[in-house]
Formats: sequence, structure tokens, C-alpha cells
Amino acid sequence: MYEGAVQDLIDELGRLPGIGPKSAQRVAFHILEADTEDMRRLAEAIVSVKEKVKFCQICFNVSEQETCRICQDDRRDRSIICVVEESKDVMAIERTRSFRGLYHVLGGSINPIAGIGPEQLHIRELLNRLSDDTVQEVIVATDPNLEGEATATYLVRMLGSLGISLTRLASGLPVGGDLEYADEVTLGRAFEGRRSLS
Amino acid sequence: MYEGAVQDLIDELGRLPGIGPKSAQRVAFHILEADTEDMRRLAEAIVSVKEKVKFCQICFNVSEQETCRICQDDRRDRSIICVVEESKDVMAIERTRSFRGLYHVLGGSINPIAGIGPEQLHIRELLNRLSDDTVQEVIVATDPNLEGEATATYLVRMLGSLGISLTRLASGLPVGGDLEYADEVTLGRAFEGRRSLS
Repeated sequence: MYEGAVQDLIDELGRLPGIGPKSAQRVAFHILEADTEDMRRLAEAIVSVKEKVKFCQICFNVSEQETCRICQDDRRDRSIICVVEESKDVMAIERTRSFRGLYHVLGGSINPIAGIGPEQLHIRELLNRLSDDTVQEVIVATDPNLEGEATATYLVRMLGSLGISLTRLASGLPVGGDLEYADEVTLGRAFEGRRSLS
Repeated sequence: MYEGAVQDLIDELGRLPGIGPKSAQRVAFHILEADTEDMRRLAEAIVSVKEKVKFCQICFNVSEQETCRICQDDRRDRSIICVVEESKDVMAIERTRSFRGLYHVLGGSINPIAGIGPEQLHIRELLNRLSDDTVQEVIVATDPNLEGEATATYLVRMLGSLGISLTRLASGLPVGGDLEYADEVTLGRAFEGRRSLS
């Protein structure tokens, strides 16, 4: 509908996830009216992320070098690996500052409907990392949903015989939440996982 | 939090309107995983819109040339001008295919709180367009909100003495809407503007 360049931009923006046609139009007009230098920086950031960012050869986290900052860091505890679905999960856990081990990013979760089986995930590479005796514990931190649980179950089957301690993140009530608003599955898990106070 | 290029991209995306930190992260990871050629096209579309797109010298609609497609189109009725706030409004009206005249884009609406007075809008240029006898009617199609109504009132004061027919878009119930859910102002306007059926 718009003349060439404006419509091209709206089309390209509309292909990004979570940006509908109305949002794409709004963002396009913002870009049109914004400072040229700022928008050149945005365009460069898009190109540069594709050129510079790779995936860590050890843990598959995003990285600008062959291995990521976390795998390179000598102060991290190499005896414990936390297995997550995505790089975003690494960042979420890093923000808690409560984990000082290494990570392994699977690159998704087992989802037969979307055609993602174990062979599409970095599970073989995880097994390779466990082949010497360095790692003592693997924390399975896949999402607490259907696909994440299926992936966790699969990992337990694959790693169960290696003599490594396998753990799963606790499910329960979110801190700051209201008990009466918790769904029954979460509340059930909170009961199962109850801790002794004495 | 992320390594260089990824965090740069998240920061730049987060500055766009309507894209919060979570969305910026999601879009950044999508860009990271998307086809390189597609993302180069997006980056080029951003730069190109800044380089190519100007504003029409007659009506201030977005345009890739000195004057926009609509002002250049000989089949449009030059005796009627529809005054709108933004280029987006031109597109919205064009989609209805019910208007065949020309437009005039004010570039916003009078908003004293945001420091936008009549002199910041393209009102002087509108008066210049009305200085010969070509234009017979001006349709004031500013938004039906406080700022749009204030702008309409101002325009009526400025153009009232020119002997040109001045009209305002009808306010009333949205087609397909429910009467019981209409706000009282809209319902009031629908009563005022009721049409004879006989």
C-alpha cells in the first residue's frame, strides 16, 4: 500500500516474531522519523550479530569466540553442568547469581509435533562432555512444561547409567505469588516437594 | 548481560516503540537464528527508508519523490482536500476506497502539554493550497479525541472565512459493534448524528 521503501520495511518488520502488521507500521514510521544515525546503528547491530555471533563449541551458548565466556572462566565449577533449552535460559540463571557451574544448551526440547527429536538437540555433545570423570552432577533445567519434561525424562534415561548425580529444578509456588491463584499442578508439585522446617 | 553484539542488538531493538526488554531479547534471538540473507534485507530496508523516503512537498504524505503518488495522480479530484494528522491516516482512508480527492497531512495535532501548537503543524501550507479557487471542500479528518477535536476547532476558525465548504467525519457507533458496549460520548454522538430512514 505504501510507496516502495516504506512498504518494504513494514514487510520485513512484519516477519519478525510477535510483530503484527499494526506494530510493523508503527515501528516503520518511528524509524522514518527517528535520528538517521540511531537507525544506522540498529541496521549495523542486525548485520553485526549475524557476522560475529557463533555458538560455543563446548556448551552451544551464544558466543563471539570459539568458546563462550562461561566455559572460558577458570573460576566456574567444572564438576557441575546445568542443562537448559536455550541461551536465554543461561542468562536467566546467570541473573540469579546462584549457580557457579557450567552450562549445556540443548537448542530446544523434544517436540514430536514440531518434528524435533533427540537427534536435533545437542545431546550427543552432552554425552561426550560426560565421558571423563570431571562432571559429578548434571542439573536438568529444561522448562517445566510438556516438552521440557519429556526432554528431562529422555536425559534421565540416557544419563542414568553413568553414575553421575542427576537433579531437576524444584517445581512449586512462585515466590511472591498467591497460593489461591496457583494452578492445581503447581500446587500439587509444591506439596510433593515440601521441605522440613524443623 | 550478553556478549557484545547480542547485547548491542537487544539494546537497539529495545529503543523502538512498543518493544520491551523481553520482546527485544526474543526478536534478537530470532535474528540470530534467522537466515542471514533475510536479516541483511531487513537491515537494508531500515537504511534505505531513511535514505529514500521524504515527505511530499504539497501534502506532506510520505513519498519517494518530491511529490507523492496521490498528488501526482491526475484522476484524483482536486477540488476536495481531506486533512489528516499522519501519513498512516492517509493509508487507512485509502484502504476504504471511498475518497478520491487529495490529502493534507498536518504532521500531528495541537497538544499544548506536548508543546505542539498550530505553528508546528503544516497549517500555513494548507492555507497556501487554498489560496486559489480550485478547492471547494475541506474534510477535517483529525482523530476523534481531545487533541484532534482541538485541531479541528482551530482549523474551522482559520478556514471559516474562506468560503470553502468545511466538513468533519461522522462520529457514531462503529459498524459491527455492540450498542451496549459503546461509551456514552460515542453513543451521544450517534444520537446527535442520527439519519432519517424514510
